[in-house]
Amino acid sequence: MQDTHDAQDMPDMQGILQEIADRIEPLRGQGSVAAYIPSLGGVSPDRFGICVAMADGGVYGAGDWRVPFSIQSISKVFSLALVMSYDYDSIWRRVFREPSGTPFNSMIQLEADQGIPRNPFINAGALVVTDRLLTLTGDAAASVRGLLRLESGNPSLDIDPVVAASEADHGHRNASMAHLLASYGNLENPVEEVLANYFNQCALEMSCEDLAKSALFLARHGVSAGGTPFLSPNQSKRVNAVMLTCGTYDAAGEFAYRVGLPGKSGVGGGIVAIVPGRCAITVWGPALGPNGNSLAGIAALDHFTALTGWSIF
Amino acid sequence: MQDTHDAQDMPDMQGILQEIADRIEPLRGQGSVAAYIPSLGGVSPDRFGICVAMADGGVYGAGDWRVPFSIQSISKVFSLALVMSYDYDSIWRRVFREPSGTPFNSMIQLEADQGIPRNPFINAGALVVTDRLLTLTGDAAASVRGLLRLESGNPSLDIDPVVAASEADHGHRNASMAHLLASYGNLENPVEEVLANYFNQCALEMSCEDLAKSALFLARHGVSAGGTPFLSPNQSKRVNAVMLTCGTYDAAGEFAYRVGLPGKSGVGGGIVAIVPGRCAITVWGPALGPNGNSLAGIAALDHFTALTGWSIF
Amino acid sequence: MQDTHDAQDMPDMQGILQEIADRIEPLRGQGSVAAYIPSLGGVSPDRFGICVAMADGGVYGAGDWRVPFSIQSISKVFSLALVMSYDYDSIWRRVFREPSGTPFNSMIQLEADQGIPRNPFINAGALVVTDRLLTLTGDAAASVRGLLRLESGNPSLDIDPVVAASEADHGHRNASMAHLLASYGNLENPVEEVLANYFNQCALEMSCEDLAKSALFLARHGVSAGGTPFLSPNQSKRVNAVMLTCGTYDAAGEFAYRVGLPGKSGVGGGIVAIVPGRCAITVWGPALGPNGNSLAGIAALDHFTALTGWSIF
Amino acid sequence: MQDTHDAQDMPDMQGILQEIADRIEPLRGQGSVAAYIPSLGGVSPDRFGICVAMADGGVYGAGDWRVPFSIQSISKVFSLALVMSYDYDSIWRRVFREPSGTPFNSMIQLEADQGIPRNPFINAGALVVTDRLLTLTGDAAASVRGLLRLESGNPSLDIDPVVAASEADHGHRNASMAHLLASYGNLENPVEEVLANYFNQCALEMSCEDLAKSALFLARHGVSAGGTPFLSPNQSKRVNAVMLTCGTYDAAGEFAYRVGLPGKSGVGGGIVAIVPGRCAITVWGPALGPNGNSLAGIAALDHFTALTGWSIF
Repeated sequence: MQDTHDAQDMPDMQGILQEIADRIEPLRGQGSVAAYIPSLGGVSPDRFGICVAMADGGVYGAGDWRVPFSIQSISKVFSLALVMSYDYDSIWRRVFREPSGTPFNSMIQLEADQGIPRNPFINAGALVVTDRLLTLTGDAAASVRGLLRLESGNPSLDIDPVVAASEADHGHRNASMAHLLASYGNLENPVEEVLANYFNQCALEMSCEDLAKSALFLARHGVSAGGTPFLSPNQSKRVNAVMLTCGTYDAAGEFAYRVGLPGKSGVGGGIVAIVPGRCAITVWGPALGPNGNSLAGIAALDHFTALTGWSIF
Repeated sequence: MQDTHDAQDMPDMQGILQEIADRIEPLRGQGSVAAYIPSLGGVSPDRFGICVAMADGGVYGAGDWRVPFSIQSISKVFSLALVMSYDYDSIWRRVFREPSGTPFNSMIQLEADQGIPRNPFINAGALVVTDRLLTLTGDAAASVRGLLRLESGNPSLDIDPVVAASEADHGHRNASMAHLLASYGNLENPVEEVLANYFNQCALEMSCEDLAKSALFLARHGVSAGGTPFLSPNQSKRVNAVMLTCGTYDAAGEFAYRVGLPGKSGVGGGIVAIVPGRCAITVWGPALGPNGNSLAGIAALDHFTALTGWSIF
Repeated sequence: MQDTHDAQDMPDMQGILQEIADRIEPLRGQGSVAAYIPSLGGVSPDRFGICVAMADGGVYGAGDWRVPFSIQSISKVFSLALVMSYDYDSIWRRVFREPSGTPFNSMIQLEADQGIPRNPFINAGALVVTDRLLTLTGDAAASVRGLLRLESGNPSLDIDPVVAASEADHGHRNASMAHLLASYGNLENPVEEVLANYFNQCALEMSCEDLAKSALFLARHGVSAGGTPFLSPNQSKRVNAVMLTCGTYDAAGEFAYRVGLPGKSGVGGGIVAIVPGRCAITVWGPALGPNGNSLAGIAALDHFTALTGWSIF
Repeated sequence: MQDTHDAQDMPDMQGILQEIADRIEPLRGQGSVAAYIPSLGGVSPDRFGICVAMADGGVYGAGDWRVPFSIQSISKVFSLALVMSYDYDSIWRRVFREPSGTPFNSMIQLEADQGIPRNPFINAGALVVTDRLLTLTGDAAASVRGLLRLESGNPSLDIDPVVAASEADHGHRNASMAHLLASYGNLENPVEEVLANYFNQCALEMSCEDLAKSALFLARHGVSAGGTPFLSPNQSKRVNAVMLTCGTYDAAGEFAYRVGLPGKSGVGGGIVAIVPGRCAITVWGPALGPNGNSLAGIAALDHFTALTGWSIF
């Protein structure tokens, strides 16, 4: 139903993005850059970028919107979409799609649920999705990179090998999770290979512009940049539903309450959000709030929905 | 943005509801009627009703859509809206708005979070909301009843005293929760009074028609049946967001995935769902699935979104 | 086997107790007096008493060993012994005898185990024991008082009604636990009566001397002060085993490691310990350490085992 | 104090062991052999052996008391004792000595306690002990083997390489735990090395006779087979205390209640128990009960304490 918008609906997007960038100014550098992956710690905390890619093709940006950053967990949206594109619904036998509750539950929940992670966006669930994609394609990280190059139209976007190596060196927690999944028989490939693919897909470097264009299929009911269906309308709707309920870690409810859009964040400071039928928005601010989401990014999306009046509710 | 729908958008609603009733036929009586409140156990499991109240005033129904049933937890939406209408945002100091994760967490979570319930739709959170409404109005259950009578236009809808007494007699778990909240100083009124008001508001009896009309303000950006604002557009949007992320117990993610609408269920077998800008839908089927939601009701809403193509995603 | 000790085994007990009191001097007043029961908060934190009652009848004391204090959870040992004396082993169908792990587990554990508390010395388990004693005797608190008067030879020891009322007023957490037990069908009597009996038995006032004499049957293989068997040798051994594994809250392992004797503490600052075949020891120091055990009391018992060389290991 | 036993205390030990073997007959083969390590699954479930090594040098046995079996977790007692012999008390900065509560807590507890395992006998704690021993000696498994050869007087006892390899192949859960410890900085050596040493020490093969002789120092206040102090009396007492509170997994309270002796079990079906001052007892029965302890073994120790009257309580 959201497809039949009149031209007069369209606000002055460039002006809105500039206003958001101005309003965000005092927040720059508040919060703290993710430190657990050493090579991420070097990013300047006061960067800020925002980009909107419209369903009809327009692209608008402000601030550092063309500066690449580490997409980290945002990659989980694309690996999930890829698995669903190959395999339709079978991944849901191996992972639930429920919000995860408090963070300390991840391991106890895996035990209580016999190795089935609570959703594809917590690390345990994302490892299962990557494992499946690895089986389906032989190289999960390369598949994600291929999709992103195609959708963004940027053939040079790539994995940052320094970040990937840094994640591997400090990835004891993910290794712990992967071995726990393996102990329940919920990995098809060797733990080491799944981890390598996972660290690589998280280490992809993209700008706000690249990311907004790449996520646009979720605002176009599954239609890819090339105009062909990548996901069915129903699948696209469902990826958005999972993003809304599970996309921002422990703060999914808060994000839905404040922003009111499906969204997925990463510890690199990026967030992708979708207005179904209208546009994909990317924000980037490396300094994170207490829940691991970009502090400036959440505020920017808050302003965006207030200024445009766009919300799914 | 969802307000400017053309007339040709409008499908044959009466035909759709009849088709849903037909499709639901084989599911009638599957699942099991909630037994923990003895007086609820007497309801025939094969009842089924559905009603749609359109934002523009049209009302459509099929099956047992005018038969009253116990609304139970659906009352939590109205007590929350009332508290927000009086008190704007201050309730959120006493309750979070995050999904609750696995059910066994409710008490451990209360301990970890020092008495702040995870959201207003789990019982602990609803007790806090009722407590606040009791302080604000002197009679929380009567306030909810008053709102529902006004919005539904049915001045005779009322609390079933037998159900209320039955809940009180078997309410040890809610009493346990209320005392735990009190031990953290998160109740303003005596435990017994809060419980009495809570059991009364849950024991309200309403038909699908009454309920759909009563919830319509959430599809009209907060505008009441009388045409005046009951909630602000922003508040209405936020109640919908909380319904989507927390409205169907432990199955909120599944509900968002399958149905894709904000919704709230009750163990009486009712579910209310909202298509923002368009309509409120109520379904009723007393036999419940494993997560405590109406089995036929969820299936009916699934068919509804498939047949209308309406979704927020 | 511990019964055949030669006379030359007997150290200079009075000298030992005096030395302990001297060593404990710098600790007096460290830690903090339990504040959650207001009437307990008024006790001076620097009191200290110690008493040893020998199996052969000798009684030794130092410091405030004849000053009465609130025995609180130490009463749980006597209610358990009473139930076992009436009912042999049937209480173990309603409560386990395993250590409780971390404190935040008490409620989650009750849910996971369908209402069976982990041991009789955590509050949930003690409520079940009191409930059983209430059924068996008609007045659980009076039965405990009767046993203590008989064993201590002090017919005037009694419940402090101010403390009992203070516990009832601030007993939301115990009320929460009792209702949760009731929701699982693991109480035989009304919640209010069980709580009243429980608060009364915890509010008993006794001196170190009274308590050491009262607990002596556990050092005499179940033989009461009057010389008749109160418990069988096997039952006495088993109460000691439960004290060792579960008697000092979350610090049972630490207590076994440092002190090496079965013991039971209370938030009033008292601790009772048993050297099977030899003696019962009571210490009292109202200021508590982080685990809710008397700081000076634990140190005193540590010195006691070092100076006497007595340990079960 | 337990050292001064008269000769007339000594019961007819050979007769007692024979009677236990007779009584155990109907239990042979009940329960199930541990299956998660494939090579353990091949052991015949109806084997049964028992051996008592007296502090004064006498050794008594019945049944399969000279048949070697996989000692598994019993090795944790010896690695702990070795670390304490080198390092006195410093290991307790890296591991607690509290009972572990319900089994599903192990990982949530590690998170709540920032990577400090609850005790040295759960797997997480044993990995920390092995890691420390590896740092201290360069080869943890060889050190444990060396101690056992010396104490048992059997220079040919050794690691079963098939069992060790089998554990490594199916050790995802231990690998998960080790990586989680590493993520908290609580391992000094690489995960793979710690795991290899751990699997090797668990794969040691010993008979009841070897084991009873090897554990005898814990009944002799730390004095080794050679007559020299291996542990101080205080350390020996403390290892016994940890065995009592934490030695039989989730059933430590039950074991203390029924048997009343410090004990440590392994999934190979062995149990070692200590009567301080008197003797070490080993039982072996490969078929396990629901808590992972030898079914026949627990029953045999129950009979042992009943027939001898020996208990620490």
